[in-house]
Amino acid sequence: MNIYDVSQHAGVSIATVSRVLNGNPNVSDKTRAKVHAVMDELGYTPNVFARGLGLNTMKTIGIMCSDSSDPYLANAIYFLEQKLRSHGYDSILCCTGPSLENKRTYFDLLLSKRVDAIILAGSKFVEMKDEDNSYLIQAARELPIMLVNGFLPAPGIYSTLCNDHDAMYDAAARLLDSGRSNILYLYTSYSYSGVNKLAGYKDALVSHGITVRKDLIQQCVKNPASAKETIEQLADSGLVFDAVMTSDDSLAVGAVKYAHSRHIAIPKELAVIGYNNSILSDCTDPEISSVDTKIKELCITTVDTLMQVFNGDNVPEKTVIAADFIQKQTTNF
Amino acid sequence: MNIYDVSQHAGVSIATVSRVLNGNPNVSDKTRAKVHAVMDELGYTPNVFARGLGLNTMKTIGIMCSDSSDPYLANAIYFLEQKLRSHGYDSILCCTGPSLENKRTYFDLLLSKRVDAIILAGSKFVEMKDEDNSYLIQAARELPIMLVNGFLPAPGIYSTLCNDHDAMYDAAARLLDSGRSNILYLYTSYSYSGVNKLAGYKDALVSHGITVRKDLIQQCVKNPASAKETIEQLADSGLVFDAVMTSDDSLAVGAVKYAHSRHIAIPKELAVIGYNNSILSDCTDPEISSVDTKIKELCITTVDTLMQVFNGDNVPEKTVIAADFIQKQTTNF
Repeated sequence: MNIYDVSQHAGVSIATVSRVLNGNPNVSDKTRAKVHAVMDELGYTPNVFARGLGLNTMKTIGIMCSDSSDPYLANAIYFLEQKLRSHGYDSILCCTGPSLENKRTYFDLLLSKRVDAIILAGSKFVEMKDEDNSYLIQAARELPIMLVNGFLPAPGIYSTLCNDHDAMYDAAARLLDSGRSNILYLYTSYSYSGVNKLAGYKDALVSHGITVRKDLIQQCVKNPASAKETIEQLADSGLVFDAVMTSDDSLAVGAVKYAHSRHIAIPKELAVIGYNNSILSDCTDPEISSVDTKIKELCITTVDTLMQVFNGDNVPEKTVIAADFIQKQTTNF
Repeated sequence: MNIYDVSQHAGVSIATVSRVLNGNPNVSDKTRAKVHAVMDELGYTPNVFARGLGLNTMKTIGIMCSDSSDPYLANAIYFLEQKLRSHGYDSILCCTGPSLENKRTYFDLLLSKRVDAIILAGSKFVEMKDEDNSYLIQAARELPIMLVNGFLPAPGIYSTLCNDHDAMYDAAARLLDSGRSNILYLYTSYSYSGVNKLAGYKDALVSHGITVRKDLIQQCVKNPASAKETIEQLADSGLVFDAVMTSDDSLAVGAVKYAHSRHIAIPKELAVIGYNNSILSDCTDPEISSVDTKIKELCITTVDTLMQVFNGDNVPEKTVIAADFIQKQTTNF
């Protein structure tokens, strides 16, 4: 349902519908009444960001990213920029780092540049405390805010995300179904996506009648060396586990390196599953089974959704894309 | 030597020097003469992009990058954006891909946005044929063009680069000094940086009295799987080598995986050296000795140089930064 449907049903040009939507006086009362009647008949409500045609625009989109040196986010920026460019939009990039204060500063800076929309790449932009998200909710009254792999329910905020819960549930279920029951879960952060991944792991355990144990859920810093060290310390303290699942491939690399250093056979004695299916998961021997979170598809859908928003279409505030499990050697039982 | 020195020696404000430089009539003839006399005395020639103070500017820099999903370039974009932001400049990003046609299209597009300068990140922007670089040389008459790890000698083009020749010479010399003489060299492209790396490898061989052999110099696609396959085919065709040097860590990962698959001991039977010291070089067991090409330092220097150019300082058209060899397990003889 969009401006084109209205134009067709009313038998007027798109430019005319656009003029009606924008309150342009240059339309006869009769035509205006007809367009409104068709919109009522079709149940068409233009969203607040409908541009119709010919409104002022800088044709520039702000992209915020917490860390472009992360391979996952670097790919996201690449795909977003390419897709926006194909629609004739420039991208102004801001690398914010993790602090809320910097995120807010850069956000305000982009607003002051009068960008047409702001895309937040990565789930790190949705904060745990509601009040910390209020600057986004407030701004979304003025311009569209697009979340790539985050979700914040508010008018004017459009989220495109991977179903991290189901992806992690599926991965854990594969381990459980093949007889592993002591699955160590390593994660890096309690972001929106991080919370969903952990919930998927827990739900899979519960559905298989296995108790969720706090000592098997451990946080560590996002690099192979930290993950390896964390696992070594856990093993040395007596923790027993027959599989490692991780919220990011870099941690899974650390798990493989731990197994090498202790002469533990993969996957016979220890199965390992990564997340994001990045190049890192293909660097180790054995190569690491991982979850393809469809970053390219997420980015393309985000930009497509934004163009529909500009177009006045009724678009869902949340689009969910399913992940794929990529079977490699670390779960080749 | 900059506008501040002139201001101090002439005993006038920076704003006054700026007015003189910009031909502002709002300066007395006496003051103008004094400023010119000091500039002559100090040998100060403002570059053509001198802004002085208060000239019109969008405070926006265009950044072009051939592939932001490459970890090396993703880091470059991150450091450039952060450093430009600290000087109050926005970054408009363009991911061009490898084709010259797209590079030129995006370059023209950035020019049409009236950016204050264009930064080309990565050595892929310097083409082998002179005429393919003429669009850059021409544009550099109008605005500063900054090359990160590329070099093109022309007025208005400022290059900051890593000494790839010396870095590769040093790495090869380490192998030769420890008795390796059949060093397989894998590279991905004949970019400006690619040509220098290969020259460093060849010069090290020659200086050690070893003949450069074409069959030991091989091109392959930039990922671990392609490198592994290339090496397997070479070994199967009878090529003998006791070390692998690569123009990028991703190829070195392939070399380690080749050794694993053939049960070849590293470094005893095969030494491996990567390039860029990226996270990839830390993912394998053993970890890969690599060359730290100082990407952060290159980016910070590029932006500092640009600010000096805007400031009217006399800055060198080429700044070279030395790389560091990072000794890890694949050359731990």
